[in-house]
Amino acid sequence: MVTIAVDAMGGDDAPDALVRGVALVSLDERPLSTILVGDAPELTRRLREVRHNPERIAVHHAPESIAMNEAAGDALRRKPRASVVVCAHLVREGAADAMVTAGHTGAAVLAAARHFRRLPGVRRAALAAVYPTELRRGDKEDPFSLILDVGATLDATAEDLVSFAAMGSSYAQVVSNNPRPRVALLSSGAESTKGPPEIVRAHALLNALPGIHFIGNVEGTGIPRGAADVVVCSGFLGNVVLKMLEGVGETILGLARYAGKERLLWRAGLWALASGLDRVKTLTDWQEYGGAPILGLGHVCIKAHGRSGPRAVANAVKVAAKAAAGGVPAKIAASLAQADTLQNC
Amino acid sequence: MVTIAVDAMGGDDAPDALVRGVALVSLDERPLSTILVGDAPELTRRLREVRHNPERIAVHHAPESIAMNEAAGDALRRKPRASVVVCAHLVREGAADAMVTAGHTGAAVLAAARHFRRLPGVRRAALAAVYPTELRRGDKEDPFSLILDVGATLDATAEDLVSFAAMGSSYAQVVSNNPRPRVALLSSGAESTKGPPEIVRAHALLNALPGIHFIGNVEGTGIPRGAADVVVCSGFLGNVVLKMLEGVGETILGLARYAGKERLLWRAGLWALASGLDRVKTLTDWQEYGGAPILGLGHVCIKAHGRSGPRAVANAVKVAAKAAAGGVPAKIAASLAQADTLQNC
Repeated sequence: MVTIAVDAMGGDDAPDALVRGVALVSLDERPLSTILVGDAPELTRRLREVRHNPERIAVHHAPESIAMNEAAGDALRRKPRASVVVCAHLVREGAADAMVTAGHTGAAVLAAARHFRRLPGVRRAALAAVYPTELRRGDKEDPFSLILDVGATLDATAEDLVSFAAMGSSYAQVVSNNPRPRVALLSSGAESTKGPPEIVRAHALLNALPGIHFIGNVEGTGIPRGAADVVVCSGFLGNVVLKMLEGVGETILGLARYAGKERLLWRAGLWALASGLDRVKTLTDWQEYGGAPILGLGHVCIKAHGRSGPRAVANAVKVAAKAAAGGVPAKIAASLAQADTLQNC
Repeated sequence: MVTIAVDAMGGDDAPDALVRGVALVSLDERPLSTILVGDAPELTRRLREVRHNPERIAVHHAPESIAMNEAAGDALRRKPRASVVVCAHLVREGAADAMVTAGHTGAAVLAAARHFRRLPGVRRAALAAVYPTELRRGDKEDPFSLILDVGATLDATAEDLVSFAAMGSSYAQVVSNNPRPRVALLSSGAESTKGPPEIVRAHALLNALPGIHFIGNVEGTGIPRGAADVVVCSGFLGNVVLKMLEGVGETILGLARYAGKERLLWRAGLWALASGLDRVKTLTDWQEYGGAPILGLGHVCIKAHGRSGPRAVANAVKVAAKAAAGGVPAKIAASLAQADTLQNC
């Protein structure tokens, strides 16, 4: 049975959304246990109020928690027993297989990076984001792609980009049941010579790597279209691109409403479409989906969105369990070992 | 009277759209003359077929032209008398004040960079793009912002970013009648310390520059929202961001149509909204607006979209005339001279 440590004190609706999410998971037919980490008396009291399977939920006390407005480094220094840190400890010690937090992103990345060992060949952990695209795939018409790094690092060397490719490919294989995810580098042109030197070099390295289904460079247009299952870029570029994707959803709605002011027929259309437009907004809010994995470490940490409700928390816990059971870290390590062998030939 | 050299042989509808666009301008009440550059007999014949003011249009022969699929460097080497190059010559020699082309972007940037002098303090010319935002400004409810560089260069030093800020600010002052355009750096966080070293340094330099209304960093979300009138970034980042903006319009429509399949009411709404959605698509197609200026040189070159029809060509010619008459290059030079003085203090 897979066990997931859940930071019960992080997120806009903590601890309520976390307690309810974990309760939902405990009633699921799949065997999966969780450890709720946080203010134990409070968590125990709240658990009593919701239907759950007590055999599948443990409560572990953590006396401190980190607020959204704290600086990550400072907060971790001042609060060594914060719930997110205790989660990382539980995973490192083998009491849990992976962790989930809906709290402070920087603190989650830092706690994972400090307490989990880095995989061989990985210089820095990466944060990956799942985002919706135009292209639908497979029998579930899955419209999602993975983009990484989106914030854990700033610059990225060619070797960093190769390690991100291995991370994203392994994660998509396990979590999206995609045996051969298409991996692409984000650049300013499709040709192998386009982009800054580190991207040109990463392109050559990835072309020589048989374990990764590298389809070449994608341009900005390829991101929303879903030209690749895994889009690889520096943390700086990924951060800008992802935040832009987030902003664009709102903007399109603003423009559509503006258009609606001009013509009665359009206004009627907008009225009929209101809930559809909300759906579009949801689809462009990348933070709604399961959660963003922190990859490149010996264990998986899933960063769920701060606004996660019980169902989103439950999804994040299931994704974490799937990643842990599927051996994502081992797959990444194997892929990078292959890259290392090739480079030394 | 301002005179604009127009590359009649570049663009999807060349020379027809160019001839018709220039004819429209010649009938405008504003005094503005143009030189149509390209296959003179052909241009003269076509001009005869459309209503125009012959006193305001000259035809200048250029025996060669550059196709969209040619490599810019190669093409310029092999075709020294290509229409886009002849336009640049006419401007450099004083026969015209600025130029417009709807042809090959790379060839336009290269022709301008080779034939116009670089302004003092400018290491490389930049290509700027006008794009639509959520925020509307002024009495015309103008929803446009400028982003640069979007492709003429790849990496950018702090000094390059400062020169882009000066270029964008001067252009917005003249062309958008915006006396104090808000200029921002595109980065991964609002704080002055966020982003790669060159952005952190450019932030400090711009803060010290009184001639530019620098409002700090904007994140990706700020691009579609229109958080700034001028967004400054490296050519690589600008290229990715702009192409993504282009792709997102199509994607949102795809998602909206997908939503429409699910519910009858939504489908009815989409039908009523069809032309409104096309408007949204137009608004997200940054290439529709007037044209992208190539800045940082002694003269202005406006790169109109390849798909430009007569009206878009006419707009590009008017924008070029406004930029030339308003002395954009001199304003950029003055702004950079101030930056230089400050740095040497």
